[in-house]
Amino acid sequence: MNFKGADILSSKQFNRGDIEAVLKMAGKALPYASKKKFGDLLKGKLLATLFYEPSTRTRLSFETAMIRLGGSVVSSVGTQGSSVAKGETLYDTGKMISTYADVIAIRHNEDNSADEMAHGSSVPVINAGDGCREHPTQALLDIFTIQQELGKVDGLKVAMVGDLKYGRTVHSLSEMLSHFNVKLTFVSPPELKMPEGVCRFLKEKNVPFTETVEFADSIKDADVVYMTRIQQERFAKKKDYEKHRNVYVLTSELIKEKNPKMLILHPLPRVWEITKDVDELPGAAYFRQAKSGLAVRMALLMMVLGKSF
Amino acid sequence: MNFKGADILSSKQFNRGDIEAVLKMAGKALPYASKKKFGDLLKGKLLATLFYEPSTRTRLSFETAMIRLGGSVVSSVGTQGSSVAKGETLYDTGKMISTYADVIAIRHNEDNSADEMAHGSSVPVINAGDGCREHPTQALLDIFTIQQELGKVDGLKVAMVGDLKYGRTVHSLSEMLSHFNVKLTFVSPPELKMPEGVCRFLKEKNVPFTETVEFADSIKDADVVYMTRIQQERFAKKKDYEKHRNVYVLTSELIKEKNPKMLILHPLPRVWEITKDVDELPGAAYFRQAKSGLAVRMALLMMVLGKSF
Amino acid sequence: MNFKGADILSSKQFNRGDIEAVLKMAGKALPYASKKKFGDLLKGKLLATLFYEPSTRTRLSFETAMIRLGGSVVSSVGTQGSSVAKGETLYDTGKMISTYADVIAIRHNEDNSADEMAHGSSVPVINAGDGCREHPTQALLDIFTIQQELGKVDGLKVAMVGDLKYGRTVHSLSEMLSHFNVKLTFVSPPELKMPEGVCRFLKEKNVPFTETVEFADSIKDADVVYMTRIQQERFAKKKDYEKHRNVYVLTSELIKEKNPKMLILHPLPRVWEITKDVDELPGAAYFRQAKSGLAVRMALLMMVLGKSF
Repeated sequence: MNFKGADILSSKQFNRGDIEAVLKMAGKALPYASKKKFGDLLKGKLLATLFYEPSTRTRLSFETAMIRLGGSVVSSVGTQGSSVAKGETLYDTGKMISTYADVIAIRHNEDNSADEMAHGSSVPVINAGDGCREHPTQALLDIFTIQQELGKVDGLKVAMVGDLKYGRTVHSLSEMLSHFNVKLTFVSPPELKMPEGVCRFLKEKNVPFTETVEFADSIKDADVVYMTRIQQERFAKKKDYEKHRNVYVLTSELIKEKNPKMLILHPLPRVWEITKDVDELPGAAYFRQAKSGLAVRMALLMMVLGKSF
Repeated sequence: MNFKGADILSSKQFNRGDIEAVLKMAGKALPYASKKKFGDLLKGKLLATLFYEPSTRTRLSFETAMIRLGGSVVSSVGTQGSSVAKGETLYDTGKMISTYADVIAIRHNEDNSADEMAHGSSVPVINAGDGCREHPTQALLDIFTIQQELGKVDGLKVAMVGDLKYGRTVHSLSEMLSHFNVKLTFVSPPELKMPEGVCRFLKEKNVPFTETVEFADSIKDADVVYMTRIQQERFAKKKDYEKHRNVYVLTSELIKEKNPKMLILHPLPRVWEITKDVDELPGAAYFRQAKSGLAVRMALLMMVLGKSF
Repeated sequence: MNFKGADILSSKQFNRGDIEAVLKMAGKALPYASKKKFGDLLKGKLLATLFYEPSTRTRLSFETAMIRLGGSVVSSVGTQGSSVAKGETLYDTGKMISTYADVIAIRHNEDNSADEMAHGSSVPVINAGDGCREHPTQALLDIFTIQQELGKVDGLKVAMVGDLKYGRTVHSLSEMLSHFNVKLTFVSPPELKMPEGVCRFLKEKNVPFTETVEFADSIKDADVVYMTRIQQERFAKKKDYEKHRNVYVLTSELIKEKNPKMLILHPLPRVWEITKDVDELPGAAYFRQAKSGLAVRMALLMMVLGKSF
């Protein structure tokens, strides 16, 4: 992919070379993401963050990335007062906002909304999460974190745990990991299994994966355990939710018993699925993911704007 | 008008010389609005955007204008948590915010709110739309667009179409066009006619205008067709809305049949009143208006802050 | 207190030397707060304003302080879309946001929320108001205003009037004034008396104070009258509210009759408790407090970031 001027819409648009290019650039961005450097590489460039579905974490990550490289930000959160609320298409909004900004990051609760905006926009559009479908920058930062923590991605066993049905981060991550030599384990309640579409994609790509409801045993030999949040509203009966809530919990006791060396990731926010005592373990990388996220978003902003470190 | 330190509250405060001064300055701002230049002309200056009534389009236009000239922005959207929600007058808010900022842009759903804030403020206040009454920067950018597209304003026939009763942009535009040698046609459903006050003003100024409900024929010899959005909530009966919805629609077919050379403007957002196939026509200037808007707002910010290019 | 890297959570953490250090630094910040200078002293530093309870006035004060010293800002208002709304602890949010920002200002409607965030954060956290308990930067700016207006704090008689029960500004101010040689008078309806905890604290510190419901006579010999807003929702019966509403009102007539030289402060917004005719009196310092607020917040940002003018 030629990144300059490109839209970043889907994890599917990345081949292995593209992912490695982003990882390499993210490595160069790390001193800026770590507050060791403050740049003016993007001085004069303007990012518009359009978050129709609010997400403070992701929005502030994009904005911090832009600002720490010397760029500027304008922002809109929610739909109240937006042109979309008045009936405007995202195509029209894209046309208009691209007059203002040099790059757009959009978050929306409907599938393909980022694509529609990109269709209208004359500047690069980055998908910061749309519907239940895509969250490509999250998948890139997850892989970057793995690489930073373990030195490689090939050859690893990755277990994904929790809500695999609605959790868009695990969809994008599975698709991106298909370019690497990995073994995947999907651990979830029956109600929240990985969607058929993702499984089919992995089969086509010959990525070995297994599905299970067993939590404690499936993490025994995983190099990476990727935990996700299970939300009560996904279950028809509160009783079913309560049942899983007692099972899909990573504790330091469980880790020490089953697999003390595992790397633990989580897209955050974490609620009850990782107990606080885990935070102190060396493999608890979920807060370090925030820094990786900055580095990856810095890298993408630089690349689509045609800049280099 | 001496622009330095002035409040920009109403289209009525502009005489022809004032409008021409803004157009001239906006012309100089175009390279910045077109992303060809990024300046530091307003470095050290702070704009506060206070949008009690949210409007993403207008707010981001002001903020982009400020930032691309090197200035900074603080912003508040909605009324929740604002001092006004706690019972403060806009006069007091103006006194307080002018301690922080060098210039204020206010949007509010009540008539004269910008005037009240300006009364308290010790720094220039720009009205970014208040009530159904005024939206002077929109009118200036409309005229600037006409001048950019057609090379002149004098001698033109301008048709305004749609909701002329509640659409504040057409009120401000009519008043500002009264300083030019133009002929106006007001095309609207009977329920949404241009208010008596605007018509009286135009008569006093000897501006020739006609009013009609006929859409298709009235655009035949117009140099400029200014379309606006018709909202269902303006009609007591849904049936009446539906009736007009089928009539006040600009299509490429209609344009080609009636008047292929017309310049088409729209304050945006556009919903159904201009079909998407029109976008490709050379006269479809409504997305180019966004760039004009940046240039005009840059010009006004520079002028009230006593700066020049 | 060693300010560099410190959290500013409570007025209780300040001794007299600390307060004087802030006042001294605020004095140096005044040219920046007065728009006479625009600095780049905090260039490359990023402030995150996290206002779970919206407060435009306080948020824009912090943001303006940061920007006018050359720093940058990212911001989140309300709880919608925040990780906290998804069940995240403020501890986790602190851990995450401190990856992005160099300093955090938090406003929250629950007591001790700033402390919880500071516990997780690796960068300084400034309490911009939490629950009914603390608002330390407001207390500092109140004292700075007194010093600027009257040249001293020791030896003064300070009357606090209105809602002393829920008004967190008067709690923090009383505690900070305990380090000075002052006499306090608390004037309030019986329903809104100063909380027992604050009174006990003052007794322990041997700060002389009296409590009264009499308004007009108690301001006779006060050097400083600190007015606060009385809200209807604090009273079970509307009748009780109406009764007080007619009494706790500062008018220019009352001032001229009782004590023309008093200095009048108010944390703002002011509603009916100070009539507009008072604004013109020389002692009406409540709008000048906004400038003091900028200076004090600039001082604190500089100090916790280890910078000096």
